[in-house]
Amino acid sequence: MGKGRVEAFSDGVIAIIITIMVLEVKVPEGHDLAALTPLIPVMCAYVLSFIYVGIYWNNHHHMFHAVQKVNGAVLWANLHLLFWLSLLPAVTHWVGENHLAAWPMAMYGVVLFMSAMAYFILTRVLIREHGRESTIARAVGNDFKGKVSVVIYLAGIALAFFAPWGAAALYALAAGWWLVPDRRIEHLVEG
Amino acid sequence: MGKGRVEAFSDGVIAIIITIMVLEVKVPEGHDLAALTPLIPVMCAYVLSFIYVGIYWNNHHHMFHAVQKVNGAVLWANLHLLFWLSLLPAVTHWVGENHLAAWPMAMYGVVLFMSAMAYFILTRVLIREHGRESTIARAVGNDFKGKVSVVIYLAGIALAFFAPWGAAALYALAAGWWLVPDRRIEHLVEG
Amino acid sequence: MGKGRVEAFSDGVIAIIITIMVLEVKVPEGHDLAALTPLIPVMCAYVLSFIYVGIYWNNHHHMFHAVQKVNGAVLWANLHLLFWLSLLPAVTHWVGENHLAAWPMAMYGVVLFMSAMAYFILTRVLIREHGRESTIARAVGNDFKGKVSVVIYLAGIALAFFAPWGAAALYALAAGWWLVPDRRIEHLVEG
Amino acid sequence: MGKGRVEAFSDGVIAIIITIMVLEVKVPEGHDLAALTPLIPVMCAYVLSFIYVGIYWNNHHHMFHAVQKVNGAVLWANLHLLFWLSLLPAVTHWVGENHLAAWPMAMYGVVLFMSAMAYFILTRVLIREHGRESTIARAVGNDFKGKVSVVIYLAGIALAFFAPWGAAALYALAAGWWLVPDRRIEHLVEG
Repeated sequence: MGKGRVEAFSDGVIAIIITIMVLEVKVPEGHDLAALTPLIPVMCAYVLSFIYVGIYWNNHHHMFHAVQKVNGAVLWANLHLLFWLSLLPAVTHWVGENHLAAWPMAMYGVVLFMSAMAYFILTRVLIREHGRESTIARAVGNDFKGKVSVVIYLAGIALAFFAPWGAAALYALAAGWWLVPDRRIEHLVEG
Repeated sequence: MGKGRVEAFSDGVIAIIITIMVLEVKVPEGHDLAALTPLIPVMCAYVLSFIYVGIYWNNHHHMFHAVQKVNGAVLWANLHLLFWLSLLPAVTHWVGENHLAAWPMAMYGVVLFMSAMAYFILTRVLIREHGRESTIARAVGNDFKGKVSVVIYLAGIALAFFAPWGAAALYALAAGWWLVPDRRIEHLVEG
Repeated sequence: MGKGRVEAFSDGVIAIIITIMVLEVKVPEGHDLAALTPLIPVMCAYVLSFIYVGIYWNNHHHMFHAVQKVNGAVLWANLHLLFWLSLLPAVTHWVGENHLAAWPMAMYGVVLFMSAMAYFILTRVLIREHGRESTIARAVGNDFKGKVSVVIYLAGIALAFFAPWGAAALYALAAGWWLVPDRRIEHLVEG
Repeated sequence: MGKGRVEAFSDGVIAIIITIMVLEVKVPEGHDLAALTPLIPVMCAYVLSFIYVGIYWNNHHHMFHAVQKVNGAVLWANLHLLFWLSLLPAVTHWVGENHLAAWPMAMYGVVLFMSAMAYFILTRVLIREHGRESTIARAVGNDFKGKVSVVIYLAGIALAFFAPWGAAALYALAAGWWLVPDRRIEHLVEG
């Protein structure tokens, strides 16, 4: 079974997720500069979530480049990942509207954490399908970055109740780290 | 006439349906945990509908894998299926907002029932186009699962007026049954 | 220059148009059958518009099947068509909310009329690019159906101010006529 | 690494951006012609933004036609462009709602300016990847039109505070200039 339609469907869902988030950037009531002030936290949350969705799309793009076949388990592991990513616009809006309060910030971390777990499950399902000696198994490797990220998200969730800004900083830090392209897979596929 | 664009268009519509449902998961007013409580039925309804749309996408994906040609009747039978699926976000929201009341729960079943009928019509149109000896005809077979599902949806609609939770349980049960990948087509296409 | 990306982009926009229309089917306030009554005209308008978008997608699909090359003029003629189709959800909602009042019904006809004109322009631009002896030129032919439709839409716009239901009937009539698949192109491409 | 999925993802995001803008064309309250009057500035803003997104899609389409390979930097430069384009619906609505007031008009120019800069960065990243002697490097050339546009947008931002209509005229002027298809790349790719 071909992977083309899985990629196309994932691209469609991710494209919609990344774009509908901006629907929450509500037009201000007035028409002067002060009307834009309440938008600042909303915009910051939007930028961070945009980067996260971009990271997932890039990593998904890279990983599926090494995928050779898909089965029912892969389809559902992929839909499971898309489910958690689809909750990102809602928590992004909640964070932006509440000026980085504790619970919204913690829930944002929960969605990041569950998305990371769903991505991890997807890699395991793909490796089981392709075998331990496959390009994709070697490409994923021990997934150091993925594991550390999960710890960062958990730390962010805990920190949200004491210092929401600290949680925001942790999420931004992890995003910045992921922005560095995933050389592992890129090298293995090309080399 | 190629099937590629029919698949791409269906993927697009299904991707949008599955993603706009989450737009109804409205951000809570407050910023504490209590603000999330009214979201619980909304989230349950969202998860169930997400799974149903995922099932339709998976089955559509599998079935079109065995499709070799499309004509005008296939295009319209496919659009008819997409029409009923497009109503799922609206009934999902109605169910979630009304804590599983009778009429919303019954209407949810009606949309599931009509979607199942539309899918059945699509399989008949495809079989008529490909012939009774085609891969797709043998793959669909007597469609036992599809026929039982229709009965379950009808039972759910009736039950909704006496025990809405029972209807919800029936819908969830049918979804769980469908989550098992459709081995019939998978085997025939591969073998 | 290839036509693939033009088809993909058009599919994307049309998929979004056909799906966002249903966002206007607002969930009723109550949770009994009476709550669904105000939805009846909204649903009728949605069904008609869904069929119209489906017709445009089918015809676009058929026509581009015979297209061999695209240039800048084709891209813009295609975007022009998508522009008018993108206004269909807004007028659909206006018609549905106002129980078939005169002005909404007339504006609905204007959008249908302009979409038909845009489709006509697109066929002319494609024929100019491919030549009068091309498959696409012979397939479009004298476009009798397209020309009669334009007259029907104009009649509907005029009738909307005297008998809005008559206008609705005319629009539905034209849609029913188009539902018959466009055998002309289908035959020429296949034969 | 193939460019296909980058094109598909960009098409998806741009298709959504161009279509969700029309969601802001809110249905008027009444059902007579007067109800449409407040829509006039909204529609004008929508038409201009639709044309701008169309221009970006056309130029993106042309440019990627000459692209042979993509890397992580290209993916992020492309996402950066999509980010700024995704803000266009919000500023379009702000301009339309406020009858061309100073700040909305200036912010509209800022989004146009940043989108142009993001497009410029994308061309530089692509040229660095393909080399100075590549088709794409020669096709982009000295990018006279792009540079003049940036100056026009800056002039529009400044003018917005003194004569908002003048800023609107400048933005429309630049759009009209871009509507002329980009012959440079078209010729180089074809010739």
